[in-house]
Amino acid sequence: MNNFTFQNPTKIIFGKGSIASLSTDIPQNKRVLVTFGGGSVKSNGVYRQVCNALKNHTTFEFWGIEPNPTVETLRKAIELGKVNNCDFVLAVGGGSVIDGSKLIASAINYSGDAWEVVMKRVYSSETILPLASVLTLPATGSEMNAGAVINNSSRKEKFAFYSRYPLFSILDPQVAYSLPDYQIANGLADTFVHVVEQYLTTPNQSPLMDRWAESILQTILEIAPKILKNKTDYDSMATFMLSATMALNGFISMGVSEDWSTHMIGHEITALTGLTHGHTLAIVLPGTMQIMRHRKGDKIAQLGRRVFGITAQDRETIIDKTIEATDSFFVSIGLPTKLSENGIKTEVTEEIVERIKIRDSRFGENGDMDYTTVKDILNIRL
Amino acid sequence: MNNFTFQNPTKIIFGKGSIASLSTDIPQNKRVLVTFGGGSVKSNGVYRQVCNALKNHTTFEFWGIEPNPTVETLRKAIELGKVNNCDFVLAVGGGSVIDGSKLIASAINYSGDAWEVVMKRVYSSETILPLASVLTLPATGSEMNAGAVINNSSRKEKFAFYSRYPLFSILDPQVAYSLPDYQIANGLADTFVHVVEQYLTTPNQSPLMDRWAESILQTILEIAPKILKNKTDYDSMATFMLSATMALNGFISMGVSEDWSTHMIGHEITALTGLTHGHTLAIVLPGTMQIMRHRKGDKIAQLGRRVFGITAQDRETIIDKTIEATDSFFVSIGLPTKLSENGIKTEVTEEIVERIKIRDSRFGENGDMDYTTVKDILNIRL
Repeated sequence: MNNFTFQNPTKIIFGKGSIASLSTDIPQNKRVLVTFGGGSVKSNGVYRQVCNALKNHTTFEFWGIEPNPTVETLRKAIELGKVNNCDFVLAVGGGSVIDGSKLIASAINYSGDAWEVVMKRVYSSETILPLASVLTLPATGSEMNAGAVINNSSRKEKFAFYSRYPLFSILDPQVAYSLPDYQIANGLADTFVHVVEQYLTTPNQSPLMDRWAESILQTILEIAPKILKNKTDYDSMATFMLSATMALNGFISMGVSEDWSTHMIGHEITALTGLTHGHTLAIVLPGTMQIMRHRKGDKIAQLGRRVFGITAQDRETIIDKTIEATDSFFVSIGLPTKLSENGIKTEVTEEIVERIKIRDSRFGENGDMDYTTVKDILNIRL
Repeated sequence: MNNFTFQNPTKIIFGKGSIASLSTDIPQNKRVLVTFGGGSVKSNGVYRQVCNALKNHTTFEFWGIEPNPTVETLRKAIELGKVNNCDFVLAVGGGSVIDGSKLIASAINYSGDAWEVVMKRVYSSETILPLASVLTLPATGSEMNAGAVINNSSRKEKFAFYSRYPLFSILDPQVAYSLPDYQIANGLADTFVHVVEQYLTTPNQSPLMDRWAESILQTILEIAPKILKNKTDYDSMATFMLSATMALNGFISMGVSEDWSTHMIGHEITALTGLTHGHTLAIVLPGTMQIMRHRKGDKIAQLGRRVFGITAQDRETIIDKTIEATDSFFVSIGLPTKLSENGIKTEVTEEIVERIKIRDSRFGENGDMDYTTVKDILNIRL
C-alpha cells in the first residue's frame, strides 16, 4: 500500500425533503449567490424548494451555467458576485453547475481574471468563498470533492483545477426522477469510469480499496437497468446518487495508484465536439483497456471475475470478455461506444493526438502513456 | 434507504514514517498535552519518533491511561492540562488512550467534573480543545470518529459519550509490529464486530453499504491469519489498520439501521470483569446472532453466502453455518468464545441482566431487545 493523506470535510445531507435544511445550514447573515444551469429546476420543483428554504436569506440568482461550463459564462457570475458583495455560493444543479461554482467561489475575491485561477491552479483558503450545493444529477462527484473542470470556448480547451471542498451538499434522490434517459446514462457511465480509473492500475496494492471499488461497480451494474426502467424507484435512484458521490470523493483511492488517461482523452473529445462527458468516457474506456492490456491485464481479469462474474479459465479470454462486457454495459444503457457512431471523424482524433504531442502530456499510473498510446486508443474506437 | 447526514472531517496521515509529520501538523504555538498508556511506546520506538517530531513544541506528558480508561485516571490528566494552560491534546496509543484523550480535550476548559461530561454528553465546540492522535493499535476506530467509552471504576460503570472528531490521526502500520498476539486478536474481533453491528439489521436498505461492510469483513478474514503468522508483513498490517479505521468512521452506515446490542452487553462484561473489549464482543456476537435469528435471519444468511462463502441450499442451514463460522473465526485468532472458558460465572451474567432491567435499556435496530433478550444471549454463551 502506498503512503497517503486523506481528508474530506464535506457534509452530506441525504434523503427525501432534505432541501429544506438550506434554511439552517446557510448562516442567515450571508449574501448568497445562487447559481443555476438551464431552467429544468423550475419545472421539477427544485427551484421552488430552494426559494422556500432561503426566503429569509439575501440571495442573488445567476442563471445559465452550461454543460461543460465555460469561463466566458462564469466571468459574468463572478462579476455579479463581486458587485453584490456575495460571501457564500450555493450551486443548484449537476456537476457542471457545481464545477463552475467552484471557480465562481474561488474568483469572486480574486483580483485577476478567472482563467488565471484555472491555469495557475490558484488556491488560497483565505480568499475562496464557502460553497454548498443542491445536487440535481448524480454523475460527477463534484458535490463531495475539490476538483472542477472548466472549458475555455475561445481556445477550445478544457482543464481541471482544485478549489475547496463544498461545505455541504444536499442530495435528494427525488430531484433526479425527471432527468432524461440520456443524462442518466451519462451519469452512470461517468460513475463507472471514475471507479475504474482508481482501480484498473497496479494489482494487490490494497485489498480493501479493490473491494470497495468493485462494490460500486457491481452496484451500478445492478441498478442501471432498474433506474432506466423506472426513474421513480426511490431506492434505486438513492443508491445511484450515493454511488456517484462515493465514486469520486477519495474513499476508494487510499493508498492505491490512479490512472486518469480515459478522462484526459475524453475531455479532449468534449472540448472539440461538445459530446457529453460521460459518453466520451464510454467510448474511450474499452480502448484504454485493450491498448493497455499488457500492463493492466491482471486487474482487468480481476474486474471480469469479481464484477462481471466471468468464469473462463484462460487469462486472455477473461480479459477479452471483460472488455466486451464493459463495452456492452455502456451500449445497454443507451450510449453507442464507437466514435463513428457519434459522428466523430479522424480529423478530430488527429487533432487530439497533435495537441497531446505538442503538450508532451503523459498519462497512466506509471506516466508512460504518451501521444502514440492515445493514437492507438482512438484508432481502435473509430 | 433511510435519510441520513454524514460528515467526517478527520485527516488521515497514513504510511511508513508518517509520525514525523507531527512537526508541521501541530501549530508551533500550541501548548501540547501528550497522553500515553503504559510504556510500550518507549520500547517500540514510537515515543522517540514523537519526541523528535515535537522537539520545537512546548509539550507536557501524561502517562498511564489504562485499557478501558477510567475517569479517575483522566481527572489527573485534565488537571495537568488545566495547570499548564494546554490548548492542544495529542493522544499516542490505542483506542483507550484516544478515547480517554477525547474526555481530556473536552474537560480541560470545562469547570465541572469530568464525569458530568460523560453522563450529560456535554458537547460544546467552543470549549473542546483540538485533539490529534498517533495510533498504535488498530481496533476501535476512535482515531477517526467522535465517540469515546469511559469507565467509572468506583461505580463499575462504562458509558459512551461524543466529542469532536480528531483533527488528524497518524497511522503508521509499522508501529503495530511489536503488539502481542492477544492485542492483535482483540483488534481484529473489535473491527469485525463494529462492521457486523452496522450490517446485521434490516435487509435491502442499501446495496452499496452492504457491499462495503462485506468488503471489510472479507478483508479481515483474509488477512487475520497472515498477520498472526507474520506481524512484520507491512501490507497485511496496513490493510488491517485501514480496515479498523474504516469500520467505525461512518463510511459504512450511511442510510442503514444499526444495532449496537453486542457492544452494550460486551461493555457490561468488561465493566464487571475487566475482560478486554474485543474479547467480550467475540463471546457475545454468536449469541446475539442465535437469539435474534428470527429477526436477523435474512442478513445472517447474506453474511454467510457473501462473506464466508457458505453454499448450502436451506436457509436455516446457512444461518447455522454462518453462526458457527463466526464463532470459529474468533476461536481461530486465539479468543475462546464461551464465558466459562474465560472464568466468567453466572453471578456476573445475572448482575448484567439485573443492571439492564433496572435501567430499562432497550437495544436492537427496532429497540425491542430488553433484559430478557440479554439473559437469553448470555445463557447460551455460558
